[in-house]
Parts: sequence; structure tokens; C-alpha cells
Amino acid sequence: MEEVFSYGALYGLAEAVFRAMGCSAEHAAEAATVLVAADLRGIDSHGVARLSGYVRLWEAGRINAQPNMRIVHESPSTAVIDGDRGLGLVVAPFAMRTAIAKAAVAGTGWVAVRNSNHFGIAGIHAMMALEHDMIGVAMTNASALVAPTFSTERMLGTNPIAVAVPAGSEPPFVADMATTTASNGKLEILQRKRAPAPYGWVQDADGADSYDAAILKAGGTMLPLGSDREHGSHKGYALGSIVDIFSAVLGGASYGPWAPPFPAYVPLPMNMPGEGLGHFFGAMRIDAFRPADEFKMHMDNWIGRFRAARPAPGHERVLIPGDPEREAEVGRRTAGIPVHADVAADLRKVSERFGIGFAG
Amino acid sequence: MEEVFSYGALYGLAEAVFRAMGCSAEHAAEAATVLVAADLRGIDSHGVARLSGYVRLWEAGRINAQPNMRIVHESPSTAVIDGDRGLGLVVAPFAMRTAIAKAAVAGTGWVAVRNSNHFGIAGIHAMMALEHDMIGVAMTNASALVAPTFSTERMLGTNPIAVAVPAGSEPPFVADMATTTASNGKLEILQRKRAPAPYGWVQDADGADSYDAAILKAGGTMLPLGSDREHGSHKGYALGSIVDIFSAVLGGASYGPWAPPFPAYVPLPMNMPGEGLGHFFGAMRIDAFRPADEFKMHMDNWIGRFRAARPAPGHERVLIPGDPEREAEVGRRTAGIPVHADVAADLRKVSERFGIGFAG
Repeated sequence: MEEVFSYGALYGLAEAVFRAMGCSAEHAAEAATVLVAADLRGIDSHGVARLSGYVRLWEAGRINAQPNMRIVHESPSTAVIDGDRGLGLVVAPFAMRTAIAKAAVAGTGWVAVRNSNHFGIAGIHAMMALEHDMIGVAMTNASALVAPTFSTERMLGTNPIAVAVPAGSEPPFVADMATTTASNGKLEILQRKRAPAPYGWVQDADGADSYDAAILKAGGTMLPLGSDREHGSHKGYALGSIVDIFSAVLGGASYGPWAPPFPAYVPLPMNMPGEGLGHFFGAMRIDAFRPADEFKMHMDNWIGRFRAARPAPGHERVLIPGDPEREAEVGRRTAGIPVHADVAADLRKVSERFGIGFAG
Repeated sequence: MEEVFSYGALYGLAEAVFRAMGCSAEHAAEAATVLVAADLRGIDSHGVARLSGYVRLWEAGRINAQPNMRIVHESPSTAVIDGDRGLGLVVAPFAMRTAIAKAAVAGTGWVAVRNSNHFGIAGIHAMMALEHDMIGVAMTNASALVAPTFSTERMLGTNPIAVAVPAGSEPPFVADMATTTASNGKLEILQRKRAPAPYGWVQDADGADSYDAAILKAGGTMLPLGSDREHGSHKGYALGSIVDIFSAVLGGASYGPWAPPFPAYVPLPMNMPGEGLGHFFGAMRIDAFRPADEFKMHMDNWIGRFRAARPAPGHERVLIPGDPEREAEVGRRTAGIPVHADVAADLRKVSERFGIGFAG
């Protein structure tokens, strides 16, 4: 059910496809790097599995391969960027670089983005801050699939939050999480396996508990982190809402149930209150708070202490946010990246569509 | 089991107690306002129920009633404040005002605080930004009661996050949440009722599921938002960790299992890596992103649309974060504040201790 590809093969295909869409060499390389980082880091739902989806958005005229990305509003520590309907995979790094440049001068930089679309995995953008001895923050809104607590209506996307924190000799702390109980990618994996979904991941169209991983196709909805009110779903709902407000209301993107859908066959919502999808990025210079070396020494101490926390019976160790993705990356860089057969077939179709050689 | 007090009676007692501890008139008024805001807003665990706890910390020399709070490091958009062991109820507003002043000039302001202690409810500090047409953020670390995913050790506090967003004709969006499945206050309520805890709120000392609301007294731990790995507890663990790092590692407070305990009879941890408890505050000027009136019009639209989301069967309406607390405040300002009999007895003891008349 799976084929294994080298990082180079997947990167090469993605880059060639973005060039064929009309992206500049620089943008194609950046977009491919961001996209395939998801496959490398084990978040298969956000990597090359979406390549043909981006192509269809471009074919539908919803992606501009040669965007004129620009700052439309700014203050010493903030900016709003209009992504000009560019690939989110390119708009996001541009915006994150802006946040980092602001932070270099003002101590922190905060950038809201409108008129963009899906930007891949949030963590990779937040991690851009690390080499500058900054904490990085990235979030995005997304097509509505999630019902608020006490509701059955699709009002929010899976709206991820990523935070990357530099350390010294330890690897960085990198949290990257959807604000739902489970990501949509995990539901897709269960669908392919024809396996049921655990309690609390989804509900049916009437708000009843559902164990059907494909219930979204029958009008069901995903549930906010916490699953139900008794287990804190109102907190997941609040977190997803904060991501929506920061990413879209602040910069003028379309929010809530009006967020533009990723599948190109789904019509755009009527009366969109903003332009395109929105993101929000932050960079905080460590030495705007305390000397970077001192901070990193304490982060090493923090990480070491948490790694040494007493494991529960049946568990060998306590993980630090970012450990699983980093370990996946180490393994996949050498052993290759497993790709589901359906996705591999889709990649071959895309390569043929553009007449690109694909070593898979 | 409950007595009802007027807001004025509780505020008056708290203010007089803080004055008796040696606080200035200004600090006593501010501390009382923050403390009793918790009772007004229905978060009973963080209000006058803690008054005698603050007194005991002061008696133990762990609270300085006349702190010299000062900025020890800053950049255009950041500051680190040393709270000089002051009441968190006073240090937090000082720090939030600093964040607001930074934002007025730099667009945003971000303040890390060390050498503080419990600051009451996070939401009340975040809400200080609202009247300035700013988004407010507040978080704090706290005594370790929570085990990371796959662990049985107390490593994190309930580490709350609050975000307050101004609207136009609608009331503001105010999220204020512990990063655990349930707050410690909710466990205390169950203990008083001798009722069991729901699945996923706590585990016993060996990491087994527990339904005992008092299990923390037998070495148990609270669980991060998500409850178990399958329902996203690694996300709650990551959120609590982010709060710990922003609140304590960034500004030089004591972090993780070394966070100072609230009960004065619990000895301070050995080898504390920082000073006191830590907080983190943020203020973002709306018009550093887009004109404030335009933003507030869209927030009204956002709030209105979410309020109108289709309710699930058995539910009348969908709530906006901040609705329950605001509604509690409206009711309690007029009808009074119900206080558990044990807490009322404790308040009488405190009033006698200082020879303060108490109308309860």
C-alpha cells in the first residue's frame, strides 16, 4: 500500500511542478522546500499529498504563481501583508522574514497576512526564527470543518498553532498542533485503513457521537481539542477562534465559515468578509528579554528536566514537543519517505500532466 | 452550605487586609479589585477563597507588601520586570500597563515578569488592553500539579492563557483557560460535594485512570487539556509548556517543577533556577494592523455569526468566549456573590486576625 521515495525525488517533482505553474526559480524552490518538509517530518497529510490540490487551485485561477507580495500597513513591531493570492508556501516565508526583520529592530515582530492560501505545516515557518536566536510563532486559519462547542455547524478550520523556541545543546522545542482533538490528516489515514475513529474526534450532522472517520462526507464535523464540554472542548473552540481572529480578522482575510476552501471544486463562500486565507506570524528576539546564551542554558535545563520526568508505566520516556517530527526527519532523510499508493499514483498523474520526469 | 455577600463587602475586606499587610492604599485597592473580580466573574477558586493564602505567604516572608517593581531589561516592544516578591495581584497590572505603554509606541508590547506570585485570574489582566483598542494577552506559570503526557510526575502548573479582543457593539471576546482538562478549582468544588471526577481530569500516582477528585492528596496529578494521548493531551502539555517558557524561562522566574508553591506550608523547591513565579503579558494595538473601527466592525460580524451558529440538539445557543463570566458578573453585582460556608468562615477568621469589621 506504500511506495518509498527519496527526499530528492519528491522535492524535485514539487519544484518542477511549481516552475511549470509559472513560479520563479526562487519561489519554486522555496515552495517545494516548505511542502516536502511536511513529508520529511512525518506530517504526510500536508506534504506532496496536497501537490495536485495546489495545481487545481492554480488551474481554477485561485492561486497567482507570480504574486506581488507587499506590506500594506506597518508599525515598528507589526506589519500586514497582502499575499496577492500567491502560494501560501511562498507567502508564509516572506511574512515570517518580515516578522524577523521587525524583531531585529523592535525586539519583536508580528505579521498578519491576507489574500493567501494553505501554507503547509505551521512548524516549519515558526522554526525560521531559531537561527536568529528568536522564538517563532506561526498560525493560520483554514476551511471550516470544526463545530464550536454546543453546535453542529462548520465554523472553524483545524487552525494550527506552532511555537518554536531555541535551546543550546538540546534540539529546539517545537510545538505544532491543530486546535482540534485530532488533525484532518489522522482522519484521512483512518479512512484509507477503513478503521473507525476514536470517541470525540468527530460528530455526525445532528451532533451525535460518531465513530465514522468519513463522517465529514455526510455532513459531520470535527471537534475542538477537548472533544466535549466536560473535557474542555470550549478551550479548543476558544483556541481555534483566537487563531481565526489573529490570522484573518486582524489582517483582512476571510474568517470563520467564510474561509476559502482548499478543494478547487468547492465554490468560494458567498459574501466573503475578507480576502483569501489569513496567517499570523511572530518573532521574539531572545535578547530583548535576557541574554540569549543565558536563556538557552535554561532551555537546556528545562528540556533535560522534562525528558527526565518519571514515565508512566508502559512508557519508556517523556517526549519534548518536536521530538517525534525531528526523529521522523532523521529517519526519512536516510531511509526515504513512505508515500501511500493513492498519493504516489496522484504524483505520477501530476508529473505526466506537466511532462516532468519523476523517478518514482 | 453557602452565604451570599455583596461585592462591596468582599472588596472592602480584601482591601483592608492588604492595607493591614502594609500595602499602600493604591496597591491595596488594585489587589482587592483584581482578587474579587474572580468572585464577580464566577471563578470562585481564584477570588476571596485565596485571601488567607496570600496572608500566610506574607506571614512566611514570601510576599513583600511594599515591592520596588522595576523594568530590568527592555527593547522598543519588550520589557522584563522584577516584581520584587510583590503580590502578583499588583505586579500583574503594573506589567500589563507597561505592555500597553510599549504597544502605544511600538505597535505591540510584550512583558515577561519574574519574582512574582499568584496574580488572580488571567482574564482580568488581558482585559486591561480593551479600553485602549488593543488585544490583550496574559499568562502565568504556577505550582506543578500536572503531569506531561506519558508521565506521572508533577511538572507543570495549570498555566492559564487569556486573550481579550475588543469588539464594537458586541461585548469583547475574552478567552481565559487553564491548559488542563479541568481547572483545579473545579476539582475543589467536587471535593466539597464529595462527588467523583469525570474520566480524564486526573490520574493516580501510578498513572492509572482515577475518578477521585481528591487524588492529588494521594500523589495523583492533573492531566493536560486533551486528557490522554488519543484525545490530544500532548497538545495540552505543549500549551502548558509554552506558558511556562514564556512566563518563566524568558524573564528569569522559576519554571517547571521548581515553580514556587502557593500554600505557605509547602517548602520552596531546592535549587530553584529562577526567582519566584513568572508571568507573560502582551498588548497589540489594533491600528498597528488595520483601522480600529474597521476591525471592531468585523469582530461584531464574527461574534454575531458565531452566536448564530446552528446549536446542537439539547442546546439553546452557542456561546462566545467570555459570555459565561460576563453573565455571572451581571448577576452577582446585583444579587450578590455566593461564598461556600468554609470560605466564609475563613474570611471571618482573617477579619478577626486583623481586627477588621466584616459585614458578613
